Amino acid sequence: MAKKAKIAIVGGSGLTGTELIKILDMHKNVEVKYVTSRTYEGQMISNVFKGLTCNLKFKKSLDIEDLNGIDVLFLCLPPHDSMNYIKSLYKQFSGIIIDVGSDFRLKDAKEYKKWYGKEHIIPEILEKFVYGLPEINYNDIKNTKFIANPGCYPTSVLLGLFPVLDQKIKIKDIIIDSKSGVTGAGRKLKDNYLYINVSQNFYAYGANGHRHTGEIEQEIKSIYGKKLKISFTPHLLPVHRGIFTSIYCKIENDYSYSEIFNNYYKNSYFVNVIDSIPQIKDVCGTNMCNISTMYDNRSKVLKIFTAIDNLVKGAAGQAVQNMNIALGFPEIEGLIKEGLYT
Amino acid sequence: MAKKAKIAIVGGSGLTGTELIKILDMHKNVEVKYVTSRTYEGQMISNVFKGLTCNLKFKKSLDIEDLNGIDVLFLCLPPHDSMNYIKSLYKQFSGIIIDVGSDFRLKDAKEYKKWYGKEHIIPEILEKFVYGLPEINYNDIKNTKFIANPGCYPTSVLLGLFPVLDQKIKIKDIIIDSKSGVTGAGRKLKDNYLYINVSQNFYAYGANGHRHTGEIEQEIKSIYGKKLKISFTPHLLPVHRGIFTSIYCKIENDYSYSEIFNNYYKNSYFVNVIDSIPQIKDVCGTNMCNISTMYDNRSKVLKIFTAIDNLVKGAAGQAVQNMNIALGFPEIEGLIKEGLYT
Amino acid sequence: MAKKAKIAIVGGSGLTGTELIKILDMHKNVEVKYVTSRTYEGQMISNVFKGLTCNLKFKKSLDIEDLNGIDVLFLCLPPHDSMNYIKSLYKQFSGIIIDVGSDFRLKDAKEYKKWYGKEHIIPEILEKFVYGLPEINYNDIKNTKFIANPGCYPTSVLLGLFPVLDQKIKIKDIIIDSKSGVTGAGRKLKDNYLYINVSQNFYAYGANGHRHTGEIEQEIKSIYGKKLKISFTPHLLPVHRGIFTSIYCKIENDYSYSEIFNNYYKNSYFVNVIDSIPQIKDVCGTNMCNISTMYDNRSKVLKIFTAIDNLVKGAAGQAVQNMNIALGFPEIEGLIKEGLYT
Amino acid sequence: MAKKAKIAIVGGSGLTGTELIKILDMHKNVEVKYVTSRTYEGQMISNVFKGLTCNLKFKKSLDIEDLNGIDVLFLCLPPHDSMNYIKSLYKQFSGIIIDVGSDFRLKDAKEYKKWYGKEHIIPEILEKFVYGLPEINYNDIKNTKFIANPGCYPTSVLLGLFPVLDQKIKIKDIIIDSKSGVTGAGRKLKDNYLYINVSQNFYAYGANGHRHTGEIEQEIKSIYGKKLKISFTPHLLPVHRGIFTSIYCKIENDYSYSEIFNNYYKNSYFVNVIDSIPQIKDVCGTNMCNISTMYDNRSKVLKIFTAIDNLVKGAAGQAVQNMNIALGFPEIEGLIKEGLYT
Repeated sequence: MAKKAKIAIVGGSGLTGTELIKILDMHKNVEVKYVTSRTYEGQMISNVFKGLTCNLKFKKSLDIEDLNGIDVLFLCLPPHDSMNYIKSLYKQFSGIIIDVGSDFRLKDAKEYKKWYGKEHIIPEILEKFVYGLPEINYNDIKNTKFIANPGCYPTSVLLGLFPVLDQKIKIKDIIIDSKSGVTGAGRKLKDNYLYINVSQNFYAYGANGHRHTGEIEQEIKSIYGKKLKISFTPHLLPVHRGIFTSIYCKIENDYSYSEIFNNYYKNSYFVNVIDSIPQIKDVCGTNMCNISTMYDNRSKVLKIFTAIDNLVKGAAGQAVQNMNIALGFPEIEGLIKEGLYT
Repeated sequence: MAKKAKIAIVGGSGLTGTELIKILDMHKNVEVKYVTSRTYEGQMISNVFKGLTCNLKFKKSLDIEDLNGIDVLFLCLPPHDSMNYIKSLYKQFSGIIIDVGSDFRLKDAKEYKKWYGKEHIIPEILEKFVYGLPEINYNDIKNTKFIANPGCYPTSVLLGLFPVLDQKIKIKDIIIDSKSGVTGAGRKLKDNYLYINVSQNFYAYGANGHRHTGEIEQEIKSIYGKKLKISFTPHLLPVHRGIFTSIYCKIENDYSYSEIFNNYYKNSYFVNVIDSIPQIKDVCGTNMCNISTMYDNRSKVLKIFTAIDNLVKGAAGQAVQNMNIALGFPEIEGLIKEGLYT
Repeated sequence: MAKKAKIAIVGGSGLTGTELIKILDMHKNVEVKYVTSRTYEGQMISNVFKGLTCNLKFKKSLDIEDLNGIDVLFLCLPPHDSMNYIKSLYKQFSGIIIDVGSDFRLKDAKEYKKWYGKEHIIPEILEKFVYGLPEINYNDIKNTKFIANPGCYPTSVLLGLFPVLDQKIKIKDIIIDSKSGVTGAGRKLKDNYLYINVSQNFYAYGANGHRHTGEIEQEIKSIYGKKLKISFTPHLLPVHRGIFTSIYCKIENDYSYSEIFNNYYKNSYFVNVIDSIPQIKDVCGTNMCNISTMYDNRSKVLKIFTAIDNLVKGAAGQAVQNMNIALGFPEIEGLIKEGLYT
Repeated sequence: MAKKAKIAIVGGSGLTGTELIKILDMHKNVEVKYVTSRTYEGQMISNVFKGLTCNLKFKKSLDIEDLNGIDVLFLCLPPHDSMNYIKSLYKQFSGIIIDVGSDFRLKDAKEYKKWYGKEHIIPEILEKFVYGLPEINYNDIKNTKFIANPGCYPTSVLLGLFPVLDQKIKIKDIIIDSKSGVTGAGRKLKDNYLYINVSQNFYAYGANGHRHTGEIEQEIKSIYGKKLKISFTPHLLPVHRGIFTSIYCKIENDYSYSEIFNNYYKNSYFVNVIDSIPQIKDVCGTNMCNISTMYDNRSKVLKIFTAIDNLVKGAAGQAVQNMNIALGFPEIEGLIKEGLYT
């Protein structure tokens, strides 16, 4: 058997981190060497999280010496922490860095300042990072050492928009109404995320400028060629996992959207263009994105519906898909395609 | 004590019917005399529904003799059944008819045909029926014998739109994304409504022309003075009760929406204009509609968020509110204002 | 109209406190004058809890002067806080004290020390407090100024056991398996109570000696005449409200249990002995306790099943029922008998 | 690569069937050749169940010719259907039959009549079937062509009881309180399984003699050497998957139960004896059984808590584990050990 790729995970006790541990545990070509967690330093992973089997102990931190021999470094850290962590070591580290966080998604340091509220401390590296949406940037991902894994909402939005943007059709407005399960917020201990406040409840939040807006508009521009100002509103769903995004594009004419979408994704294993409206339950636990479209002639609105699992295609799964591509493994290795709730 | 109003309910074993029984049981000024149910004919209500205390037996049906002395007749029937039922008796019946179903909401028989798929059999009565949204049509409700209780989605949409429509501001587009709990679908025994298909799931449905679109556009026109074609998309939420509606209005300018809304509803007991985004849990079990607004200057979109309980303000509660107005009872009698999930 | 009773609530921002505010708001004969909350001091109740309509402001605390003219003082405080609070004022206060907490349920100060881990600081008052289970101690409640409201689990257990204990039948063993919704734990901000750890989950806890064991055994002894050592195990249900208790009594013979239970509760408005197994949904939001029994001849086990709403019959509702009895109001005033999920 | 084992599944559109398809799709050593479904005959599996990727079409039925060359035949059928199906073909079929249903679990045809209400039509085959609980009957499973996969409740009960039974300790009584997620009931379209009747609800059912009682007592006798009459009560949990079983054994003395359990399962990959009380979420989606024990000296009750996923270790996963053993594959091949809700 070929030598396994060696993996390090920084920030392994958040929801993205544990999902990544779980997926990599089912992956035939890798070996997880280190996982860090300040909260659980020194404790065995399978003891802290009874649903995991990994018998490594959480390390407090990893310095450049520890990373010697590591092939892939995954960063699962809150905003600002990724750039702080890699600033001093990215030049020496010879492996691939996949930032599952948000520090390297925006190409423009001013945009970073605007949406994340702080100066970027290594702006010179931003251009090096490839935006890791494999259905769009496959070749760039194949040839880079720096991958910025997309946000969960942007993944659900952009996979829905790209086929239309790619046609260069005239789009007058884009209104996006996204709904995410509560794992999108991580393991934070906040009143908002208590069972009594989530279950049997639903509401919009961040209606006046969610951070992911900048990321979405950047990628729209890169495909469409010009800037479009979108209206984006996230909502909190009373489910564990899943994002359902409803995209409303004001477009005067009815093109053959179904054909356009099928064609655009004909070679994408993880995007499924379907005839019926997608449901969260069918993609939960998988790396799939299910999509359907419908043009409403009365109101001249193209409706695009997408469903993903925010922790998988929206985070850890997509990160592993990116790793597979970058390391030349089969794109689907380690990634489940079958839903939880069949 | 004054004499109590006598009530008959036709179609009392659906979710709207049982909610109505429950509300009327807490009402000081009424006495429920008859409740019909073909399914449970002859059985005691509190035996069929262990959560109810009503000790009447379900009757199979009510004819015009039974209705002698009845002050209010509530109809909780599927489409087409209400008109079939009252066709032969509405001229003789001396009380008030409140149709909680959908047969008398559309004023135009052609629209009825278009959205409900059948000819209306008593088109001559359509103009007599008042559209029972008390926050708008209070005076008409006070002076009629025929009340068409609004649909659950239209209630959540129209209460959000009226203050803006009333200003006659130029609105370029209206995109409506509504999310409803599963009780909106009634007690139907369908695969879609099994726990395994609802819980931990979410999706849009009826994306290409939901029946409530016609009702919404009719009422928009009656306030705004001209027809606006809306885009309306309902979604199924994994909760028992509650509708959350996100309304996106493309409007060029930022008026003082908060002031407009507060002013419009300053005398409406059951509409609460609030500073934070409404949550379903706060209105569950109540007859309240909570509303907030936000204007996004970047995309020129006014966002209006509304939350109601679909079974109460969206059905049985609003029906009782209509009855209270029509009979001169205090508007809030029998209606709970306190949420289930405080 | 008669003068309304004046109410003060100490500890009004916990789940029991807000449920009490909500119930008292529907009560015709009372007026809530003060509600305290250290967390929300100075804020309007309806602003903090959007589901409530009470427009009082939370006070920081109440001293003996504030209590002048108060007819009923409800204490909704954690263990030890009730006794600390009333120690200096109970002699002067002329109204009725209803402790919805746990400081005065155990008659024996040694038992208090054993189960609650601290010395009782006013042991001399313990005998004055009546154990406020109205279905058993109606007359004592009518004639006291000191009421200890039972725990939620003990209420669900004791209402199930009393009819059998009262018969003085020989019972070899009592095994109690209780399951409670998460509101039983209050609003605590703990990892255990996050949506991601409650929803789609279930487990036992406190298996080795839950505090309510002492309370249950005390009351068993008072009816049965001798001490029985029970095995009691609580579990956490993924629901907001409701306790379902399965009681397994090893008894050699099959008496007519159904008749015994029906007879015992024939005058109890809030206990419903039913033929089918009770369901949590039928009692949710109500002050009801539904009970059924079944004797298994094979294993010689009498199974008793009870269902209550832990926040209502298990806490705030029972407290109001006790108040109604003590003040001579109708026992059911303010208390809902109709379930949420009909 | 070695030749893959060829699989046929009869009854592939129930919840056990689809779970089996999903697991076998991740299994390296097998190839599913046929899946039958009368309901969905002729339709592609991945079209009917959007969460599955299998592109076979459901066949109406399989006769003995179809089974030529099949290595393993899984039966996922309701009671009575398995015996009807194999009666005419079991003698000719050369592969292994694994009945995931209930027709061959009871060794005694009279017991079958008693618990399942019909005469067994091939009683002569009952002794040939091995009870497929691999943690107990590993060697027999290795050497048989006929495997009766245990019921979901019995799996959760027996894995908890075996270590104690094996000690031949004196047990006075065994009271079993089991709680199962709704997938235990399959995809049945019944009012009881609607979202509105399951979510936010909980209750016991089948309290007077559930079918699994006979199966549990049979296996207890086979280990313990003598018959014990148990009290078994199932309850319905508002979750998709998972069984949590609380076993209460009246035993006079405190042996070192933790040591006994750890020792008993030291070589069992899929049983995890843990220090804390197991939680359903940690085993959901996996083939694991988590167990803990606690002896209560006050009441002389040994409490044993077990958690499994009813569709995996309680059905399809255990069936695959049995297949792995019978065919000499690694016992864990295809079986996930990592929980859904980490």
